[in-house]
Amino acid sequence: MSDYETSPAYRVRQVAKRALYDRETVHAILDAGYVAHVAFMDEAGPVSLPLFYVRDGESVLFHGARKGRFMRVLGGGAPLCLTVTHMDGLVLARSAFHHSMNYRSVMVHGVAEAVTDAEKPRALDLFIRRARAGRPQETRPTNTQELKATAVLRLPLVEVAAKVRTGGPLDDPEDMDLPVWAGVVPMQVMFGEPVRDVPDAAMKSEKETA
Amino acid sequence: MSDYETSPAYRVRQVAKRALYDRETVHAILDAGYVAHVAFMDEAGPVSLPLFYVRDGESVLFHGARKGRFMRVLGGGAPLCLTVTHMDGLVLARSAFHHSMNYRSVMVHGVAEAVTDAEKPRALDLFIRRARAGRPQETRPTNTQELKATAVLRLPLVEVAAKVRTGGPLDDPEDMDLPVWAGVVPMQVMFGEPVRDVPDAAMKSEKETA
Repeated sequence: MSDYETSPAYRVRQVAKRALYDRETVHAILDAGYVAHVAFMDEAGPVSLPLFYVRDGESVLFHGARKGRFMRVLGGGAPLCLTVTHMDGLVLARSAFHHSMNYRSVMVHGVAEAVTDAEKPRALDLFIRRARAGRPQETRPTNTQELKATAVLRLPLVEVAAKVRTGGPLDDPEDMDLPVWAGVVPMQVMFGEPVRDVPDAAMKSEKETA
Repeated sequence: MSDYETSPAYRVRQVAKRALYDRETVHAILDAGYVAHVAFMDEAGPVSLPLFYVRDGESVLFHGARKGRFMRVLGGGAPLCLTVTHMDGLVLARSAFHHSMNYRSVMVHGVAEAVTDAEKPRALDLFIRRARAGRPQETRPTNTQELKATAVLRLPLVEVAAKVRTGGPLDDPEDMDLPVWAGVVPMQVMFGEPVRDVPDAAMKSEKETA
Protein backbone atom coordinates (compact mmCIF):
# COMPACT_ATOMS: atom_id res chain seq x y z
CA MET A 1 0.00 0.00 0.00
CA SER A 2 1.37 3.40 -0.91
CA ASP A 3 -0.77 6.39 0.08
CA TYR A 4 2.08 8.89 -0.11
CA GLU A 5 3.47 9.57 -3.58
CA THR A 6 6.94 10.33 -2.29
CA SER A 7 9.49 11.54 -4.87
CA PRO A 8 12.39 9.21 -5.67
CA ALA A 9 14.85 11.59 -3.99
CA TYR A 10 13.05 11.15 -0.66
CA ARG A 11 12.38 7.41 -0.79
CA VAL A 12 14.33 4.96 1.33
CA ARG A 13 17.40 3.71 -0.54
CA GLN A 14 19.31 1.76 2.11
CA VAL A 15 17.50 -1.59 2.78
CA ALA A 16 14.49 -0.40 0.77
CA LYS A 17 12.48 -3.50 1.68
CA ARG A 18 11.93 -1.95 5.12
CA ALA A 19 10.31 1.15 3.63
CA LEU A 20 6.59 1.86 4.01
CA TYR A 21 4.55 4.65 2.46
CA ASP A 22 1.07 4.03 3.80
CA ARG A 23 -0.86 6.54 5.86
CA GLU A 24 -1.74 4.16 8.68
CA THR A 25 1.90 3.27 9.41
CA VAL A 26 3.13 6.84 9.11
CA HIS A 27 0.39 8.25 11.34
CA ALA A 28 0.92 5.55 13.99
CA ILE A 29 4.68 6.22 14.18
CA LEU A 30 4.19 9.99 14.37
CA ASP A 31 1.40 9.68 16.96
CA ALA A 32 3.60 7.52 19.22
CA GLY A 33 6.31 10.16 19.56
CA TYR A 34 6.92 13.49 21.24
CA VAL A 35 10.30 14.67 19.98
CA ALA A 36 11.35 14.98 16.34
CA HIS A 37 14.84 15.84 15.13
CA VAL A 38 14.63 18.57 12.53
CA ALA A 39 17.58 19.05 10.16
CA PHE A 40 18.20 22.33 8.38
CA MET A 41 21.09 24.56 7.35
CA ASP A 42 21.83 27.73 9.24
CA GLU A 43 24.79 30.12 9.04
CA ALA A 44 27.02 27.68 10.92
CA GLY A 45 26.20 24.55 8.91
CA PRO A 46 23.74 21.70 9.28
CA VAL A 47 21.77 21.43 12.53
CA SER A 48 19.78 18.54 13.98
CA LEU A 49 17.42 20.14 16.48
CA PRO A 50 15.19 18.14 18.86
CA LEU A 51 11.67 19.62 18.91
CA PHE A 52 8.34 18.75 20.48
CA TYR A 53 5.85 18.09 17.69
CA VAL A 54 2.29 16.95 17.14
CA ARG A 55 0.53 15.54 14.09
CA ASP A 56 -2.48 17.51 12.84
CA GLY A 57 -4.17 15.50 10.10
CA GLU A 58 -1.85 15.50 7.10
CA SER A 59 0.74 17.76 8.62
CA VAL A 60 3.15 17.96 11.52
CA LEU A 61 3.25 21.01 13.77
CA PHE A 62 6.21 22.15 15.82
CA HIS A 63 6.68 25.30 17.83
CA GLY A 64 9.22 27.47 19.53
CA ALA A 65 10.14 30.97 20.54
CA ARG A 66 9.28 33.35 17.70
CA LYS A 67 12.73 34.92 18.01
CA GLY A 68 14.65 31.62 17.97
CA ARG A 69 17.04 30.91 15.12
CA PHE A 70 15.13 27.90 13.88
CA MET A 71 11.94 29.93 13.50
CA ARG A 72 13.92 32.64 11.72
CA VAL A 73 15.42 30.09 9.30
CA LEU A 74 12.54 27.63 8.89
CA GLY A 75 9.77 30.23 9.07
CA GLY A 76 11.56 31.87 6.12
CA GLY A 77 11.02 28.79 3.97
CA ALA A 78 14.32 26.90 4.26
CA PRO A 79 14.11 23.20 3.31
CA LEU A 80 14.07 20.83 6.25
CA CYS A 81 13.93 17.17 7.15
CA LEU A 82 11.92 16.07 10.18
CA THR A 83 12.67 12.62 11.58
CA VAL A 84 10.89 10.69 14.34
CA THR A 85 12.52 7.48 15.57
CA HIS A 86 11.34 4.89 18.09
CA MET A 87 13.80 2.26 19.28
CA ASP A 88 12.01 -1.04 19.84
CA GLY A 89 14.87 -3.38 20.66
CA LEU A 90 18.47 -4.48 20.44
CA VAL A 91 18.82 -7.39 18.01
CA LEU A 92 21.59 -9.77 19.11
CA ALA A 93 22.75 -12.09 16.33
CA ARG A 94 24.99 -15.16 16.33
CA SER A 95 27.53 -13.22 14.27
CA ALA A 96 28.92 -9.80 15.18
CA PHE A 97 28.06 -8.50 11.71
CA HIS A 98 24.30 -9.20 11.88
CA HIS A 99 23.67 -7.36 15.13
CA SER A 100 20.95 -4.83 14.52
CA MET A 101 18.17 -2.81 16.05
CA ASN A 102 14.41 -2.88 15.82
CA TYR A 103 12.97 0.55 15.18
CA ARG A 104 10.16 2.53 13.61
CA SER A 105 10.98 5.82 11.96
CA VAL A 106 9.38 8.43 9.77
CA MET A 107 11.22 11.01 7.69
CA VAL A 108 9.44 14.03 6.21
CA HIS A 109 11.15 16.41 3.79
CA GLY A 110 9.71 19.76 2.84
CA VAL A 111 9.25 23.40 3.66
CA ALA A 112 7.27 24.57 6.67
CA GLU A 113 4.90 27.48 6.78
CA ALA A 114 3.98 29.61 9.76
CA VAL A 115 0.59 28.96 11.33
CA THR A 116 -1.42 32.21 11.24
CA ASP A 117 -2.33 34.12 14.39
CA ALA A 118 -5.95 33.10 13.88
CA GLU A 119 -5.09 29.39 13.81
CA LYS A 120 -2.49 29.57 16.57
CA PRO A 121 -4.69 29.03 19.65
CA ARG A 122 -6.08 25.79 18.19
CA ALA A 123 -2.58 24.65 17.19
CA LEU A 124 -1.18 25.32 20.66
CA ASP A 125 -4.11 23.40 22.20
CA LEU A 126 -2.99 20.36 20.17
CA PHE A 127 0.43 20.45 21.87
CA ILE A 128 -1.15 20.64 25.34
CA ARG A 129 -3.57 17.83 24.47
CA ARG A 130 -0.62 15.73 23.34
CA ALA A 131 0.93 16.12 26.79
CA ARG A 132 -2.37 15.23 28.46
CA ALA A 133 -5.83 14.76 26.97
CA GLY A 134 -8.38 17.29 28.21
CA ARG A 135 -5.61 19.50 29.57
CA PRO A 136 -6.34 22.71 27.61
CA GLN A 137 -9.65 23.16 29.47
CA GLU A 138 -7.96 22.94 32.86
CA THR A 139 -5.12 25.40 32.50
CA ARG A 140 -4.87 29.17 32.41
CA PRO A 141 -5.19 29.93 28.67
CA THR A 142 -2.40 31.50 26.67
CA ASN A 143 -2.61 35.30 26.75
CA THR A 144 -1.99 37.72 23.87
CA GLN A 145 1.63 38.37 24.80
CA GLU A 146 2.40 34.64 25.09
CA LEU A 147 0.72 33.96 21.74
CA LYS A 148 2.91 36.62 20.14
CA ALA A 149 6.08 35.13 21.64
CA THR A 150 5.34 31.68 20.22
CA ALA A 151 5.61 30.63 16.59
CA VAL A 152 4.07 27.46 15.24
CA LEU A 153 5.21 25.92 11.96
CA ARG A 154 3.29 23.45 9.83
CA LEU A 155 5.04 20.85 7.66
CA PRO A 156 2.77 19.00 5.20
CA LEU A 157 2.97 15.21 5.01
CA VAL A 158 3.82 14.98 1.31
CA GLU A 159 7.43 13.83 0.94
CA VAL A 160 7.11 11.08 3.54
CA ALA A 161 8.85 7.75 4.14
CA ALA A 162 8.59 5.29 7.01
CA LYS A 163 11.21 2.65 7.73
CA VAL A 164 10.56 -0.19 10.12
CA ARG A 165 12.57 -3.19 11.33
CA THR A 166 10.90 -5.90 13.39
CA GLY A 167 11.73 -9.48 14.35
CA GLY A 168 14.80 -11.46 15.28
CA PRO A 169 18.34 -11.50 13.91
CA LEU A 170 18.95 -12.44 10.27
CA ASP A 171 22.00 -14.65 10.66
CA ASP A 172 23.72 -16.47 7.83
CA PRO A 173 22.52 -20.10 7.48
CA GLU A 174 25.97 -21.47 8.39
CA ASP A 175 25.90 -19.60 11.73
CA MET A 176 22.50 -20.88 12.88
CA ASP A 177 23.88 -23.73 14.99
CA LEU A 178 26.54 -21.69 16.81
CA PRO A 179 26.17 -21.92 20.59
CA VAL A 180 25.43 -18.21 20.93
CA TRP A 181 22.36 -16.67 22.54
CA ALA A 182 20.49 -14.82 19.81
CA GLY A 183 17.31 -12.82 20.02
CA VAL A 184 15.85 -9.43 20.82
CA VAL A 185 16.08 -7.30 23.94
CA PRO A 186 12.89 -5.19 23.72
CA MET A 187 12.98 -1.49 24.58
CA GLN A 188 10.16 0.92 25.14
CA VAL A 189 9.47 4.32 26.63
CA MET A 190 7.53 4.04 29.90
CA PHE A 191 5.78 6.70 31.93
CA GLY A 192 6.38 6.82 35.67
CA GLU A 193 4.16 8.03 38.51
CA PRO A 194 3.35 11.74 38.08
CA VAL A 195 5.20 13.95 40.57
CA ARG A 196 3.14 16.88 41.82
CA ASP A 197 4.82 20.29 41.87
CA VAL A 198 4.94 21.73 45.36
CA PRO A 199 5.86 25.41 45.39
CA ASP A 200 8.50 25.97 48.02
CA ALA A 201 7.87 28.10 51.08
CA ALA A 202 10.36 30.79 50.07
CA MET A 203 8.59 31.36 46.78
CA LYS A 204 5.19 31.39 48.47
CA SER A 205 6.23 33.91 51.10
CA GLU A 206 7.97 36.08 48.51
CA LYS A 207 4.74 36.16 46.59
CA GLU A 208 2.63 36.88 49.66
CA THR A 209 4.75 39.83 50.66
CA ALA A 210 4.96 41.15 47.09
CA MET B 1 32.73 24.05 34.61
CA SER B 2 33.59 24.18 30.94
CA ASP B 3 35.86 21.44 29.62
CA TYR B 4 34.86 21.93 25.99
CA GLU B 5 35.95 25.19 24.40
CA THR B 6 33.02 25.28 22.03
CA SER B 7 33.00 28.09 19.45
CA PRO B 8 30.30 30.77 19.82
CA ALA B 9 28.57 29.52 16.64
CA TYR B 10 27.96 26.12 18.25
CA ARG B 11 26.97 27.25 21.73
CA VAL B 12 23.39 27.10 22.97
CA ARG B 13 21.62 30.36 22.25
CA GLN B 14 17.97 29.60 23.12
CA VAL B 15 17.58 29.43 26.96
CA ALA B 16 21.37 29.47 27.36
CA LYS B 17 21.11 28.97 31.14
CA ARG B 18 20.34 25.30 30.42
CA ALA B 19 23.60 24.81 28.51
CA LEU B 20 26.45 22.71 29.91
CA TYR B 21 29.93 22.24 28.49
CA ASP B 22 31.56 19.88 30.98
CA ARG B 23 32.94 16.49 30.03
CA GLU B 24 31.12 14.56 32.77
CA THR B 25 27.67 15.74 31.67
CA VAL B 26 28.38 15.29 27.97
CA HIS B 27 29.80 11.78 28.42
CA ALA B 28 26.90 10.69 30.65
CA ILE B 29 24.30 11.85 28.11
CA LEU B 30 26.09 10.20 25.21
CA ASP B 31 26.66 6.97 27.16
CA ALA B 32 22.96 6.70 28.02
CA GLY B 33 21.84 6.61 24.38
CA TYR B 34 21.88 4.32 21.37
CA VAL B 35 20.51 6.37 18.49
CA ALA B 36 21.78 9.77 17.37
CA HIS B 37 20.20 11.93 14.70
CA VAL B 38 22.85 13.10 12.28
CA ALA B 39 22.11 16.14 10.12
CA PHE B 40 23.94 16.78 6.86
CA MET B 41 23.27 18.07 3.36
CA ASP B 42 23.01 15.69 0.45
CA GLU B 43 21.91 16.27 -3.16
CA ALA B 44 18.25 16.41 -2.10
CA GLY B 45 18.64 18.85 0.80
CA PRO B 46 19.09 18.52 4.54
CA VAL B 47 18.71 15.05 6.09
CA SER B 48 18.24 14.00 9.70
CA LEU B 49 19.32 10.37 9.83
CA PRO B 50 18.91 8.12 12.88
CA LEU B 51 22.12 6.14 13.50
CA PHE B 52 23.41 3.74 16.13
CA TYR B 53 26.45 5.30 17.77
CA VAL B 54 28.91 4.68 20.56
CA ARG B 55 31.26 7.01 22.42
CA ASP B 56 34.96 6.16 22.25
CA GLY B 57 36.86 8.46 24.60
CA GLU B 58 36.70 11.96 23.13
CA SER B 59 34.91 10.97 19.95
CA VAL B 60 31.66 9.43 18.78
CA LEU B 61 31.65 6.52 16.34
CA PHE B 62 28.82 5.64 13.98
CA HIS B 63 28.73 3.06 11.26
CA GLY B 64 26.84 1.92 8.22
CA ALA B 65 27.07 0.25 4.85
CA ARG B 66 30.18 1.47 3.06
CA LYS B 67 28.12 2.08 -0.06
CA GLY B 68 25.35 4.03 1.69
CA ARG B 69 24.80 7.66 0.79
CA PHE B 70 25.62 8.98 4.23
CA MET B 71 29.02 7.29 4.18
CA ARG B 72 29.62 8.67 0.70
CA VAL B 73 28.72 12.19 1.86
CA LEU B 74 30.07 12.19 5.41
CA GLY B 75 33.10 10.04 4.71
CA GLY B 76 33.98 12.70 2.13
CA GLY B 77 34.26 15.35 4.83
CA ALA B 78 30.88 17.09 4.69
CA PRO B 79 30.02 19.07 7.83
CA LEU B 80 27.51 17.39 10.12
CA CYS B 81 25.64 17.83 13.37
CA LEU B 82 25.08 14.83 15.62
CA THR B 83 22.36 15.14 18.27
CA VAL B 84 21.43 12.74 21.07
CA THR B 85 18.25 13.47 23.03
CA HIS B 86 16.72 11.75 26.05
CA MET B 87 13.19 12.66 27.08
CA ASP B 88 12.87 12.58 30.85
CA GLY B 89 9.36 13.87 31.39
CA LEU B 90 6.35 15.91 30.39
CA VAL B 91 6.16 19.08 32.45
CA LEU B 92 2.55 20.11 33.09
CA ALA B 93 2.21 23.71 34.19
CA ARG B 94 -0.71 25.70 35.61
CA SER B 95 -0.72 27.82 32.44
CA ALA B 96 -0.82 26.44 28.91
CA PHE B 97 2.19 28.58 27.97
CA HIS B 98 4.58 27.14 30.56
CA HIS B 99 4.11 23.51 29.62
CA SER B 100 7.49 22.03 28.87
CA MET B 101 9.58 18.91 28.76
CA ASN B 102 12.45 17.58 30.80
CA TYR B 103 15.27 16.36 28.61
CA ARG B 104 19.01 15.85 28.29
CA SER B 105 20.62 16.46 24.92
CA VAL B 106 24.05 16.76 23.38
CA MET B 107 24.84 18.40 20.05
CA VAL B 108 28.17 17.86 18.31
CA HIS B 109 29.18 19.79 15.19
CA GLY B 110 32.12 18.85 13.05
CA VAL B 111 33.52 16.73 10.28
CA ALA B 112 33.88 12.97 10.60
CA GLU B 113 36.79 10.91 9.41
CA ALA B 114 36.78 7.28 8.36
CA VAL B 115 38.19 4.78 10.82
CA THR B 116 41.07 2.92 9.16
CA ASP B 117 40.87 -0.77 8.28
CA ALA B 118 43.41 -1.48 11.00
CA GLU B 119 41.28 0.21 13.67
CA LYS B 120 37.96 -1.12 12.38
CA PRO B 121 37.74 -4.44 14.28
CA ARG B 122 38.21 -2.67 17.62
CA ALA B 123 35.68 0.00 16.64
CA LEU B 124 33.08 -2.59 15.63
CA ASP B 125 33.63 -4.41 18.92
CA LEU B 126 32.63 -1.22 20.72
CA PHE B 127 29.23 -1.28 19.00
CA ILE B 128 28.64 -4.91 19.96
CA ARG B 129 29.75 -4.22 23.54
CA ARG B 130 27.28 -1.32 23.65
CA ALA B 131 24.47 -3.73 22.81
CA ARG B 132 25.68 -6.19 25.44
CA ALA B 133 28.86 -6.21 27.54
CA GLY B 134 31.12 -9.18 26.85
CA ARG B 135 29.27 -9.96 23.65
CA PRO B 136 32.16 -9.69 21.15
CA GLN B 137 33.83 -12.78 22.66
CA GLU B 138 30.69 -14.88 22.26
CA THR B 139 29.79 -14.24 18.65
CA ARG B 140 31.19 -15.35 15.32
CA PRO B 141 33.72 -12.58 14.54
CA THR B 142 33.35 -10.28 11.57
CA ASN B 143 35.04 -11.73 8.48
CA THR B 144 37.08 -9.87 5.88
CA GLN B 145 34.18 -9.38 3.48
CA GLU B 146 31.92 -8.04 6.24
CA LEU B 147 34.65 -5.69 7.42
CA LYS B 148 34.96 -4.34 3.89
CA ALA B 149 31.22 -3.80 3.60
CA THR B 150 31.08 -1.70 6.77
CA ALA B 151 32.36 1.81 7.19
CA VAL B 152 32.92 3.42 10.58
CA LEU B 153 33.16 7.18 11.00
CA ARG B 154 34.70 9.04 13.92
CA LEU B 155 33.49 12.48 15.01
CA PRO B 156 35.71 14.26 17.56
CA LEU B 157 34.11 15.83 20.64
CA VAL B 158 35.34 19.35 20.06
CA GLU B 159 32.38 21.55 19.11
CA VAL B 160 30.10 20.18 21.81
CA ALA B 161 27.13 21.53 23.75
CA ALA B 162 24.79 19.82 26.21
CA LYS B 163 21.39 21.20 27.12
CA VAL B 164 19.43 19.90 30.08
CA ARG B 165 16.08 20.73 31.64
CA THR B 166 15.10 19.23 34.99
CA GLY B 167 12.50 19.97 37.65
CA GLY B 168 8.91 21.12 37.77
CA PRO B 169 6.98 23.75 35.83
CA LEU B 170 8.07 27.39 36.00
CA ASP B 171 4.71 29.08 36.27
CA ASP B 172 4.16 32.79 36.67
CA PRO B 173 3.75 33.83 40.33
CA GLU B 174 0.14 34.96 39.74
CA ASP B 175 -0.81 31.48 38.49
CA MET B 176 0.56 29.55 41.46
CA ASP B 177 -2.74 29.33 43.31
CA LEU B 178 -4.84 28.19 40.35
CA PRO B 179 -6.65 24.91 41.06
CA VAL B 180 -4.75 23.04 38.33
CA TRP B 181 -2.67 19.89 38.80
CA ALA B 182 0.92 20.79 37.99
CA GLY B 183 4.00 18.64 38.00
CA VAL B 184 6.06 16.22 35.99
CA VAL B 185 5.11 12.93 34.34
CA PRO B 186 8.47 11.09 34.23
CA MET B 187 9.47 9.13 31.13
CA GLN B 188 12.27 6.66 30.64
CA VAL B 189 13.40 3.95 28.25
CA MET B 190 12.99 0.50 29.80
CA PHE B 191 14.31 -2.85 28.64
CA GLY B 192 11.93 -5.81 28.55
CA GLU B 193 12.58 -9.55 28.96
CA PRO B 194 14.92 -10.79 26.20
CA VAL B 195 13.13 -12.88 23.56
CA ARG B 196 15.21 -15.78 22.28
CA ASP B 197 15.34 -16.31 18.52
CA VAL B 198 13.97 -19.71 17.52
CA PRO B 199 14.81 -20.60 13.91
CA ASP B 200 11.65 -21.91 12.28
CA ALA B 201 11.40 -25.47 11.02
CA ALA B 202 11.17 -24.45 7.36
CA MET B 203 14.45 -22.56 7.57
CA LYS B 204 16.12 -25.43 9.41
CA SER B 205 14.98 -28.03 6.89
CA GLU B 206 15.91 -25.78 3.98
CA LYS B 207 19.36 -25.54 5.45
CA GLU B 208 19.64 -29.27 6.08
CA THR B 209 18.68 -30.13 2.52
CA ALA B 210 20.94 -27.45 1.05
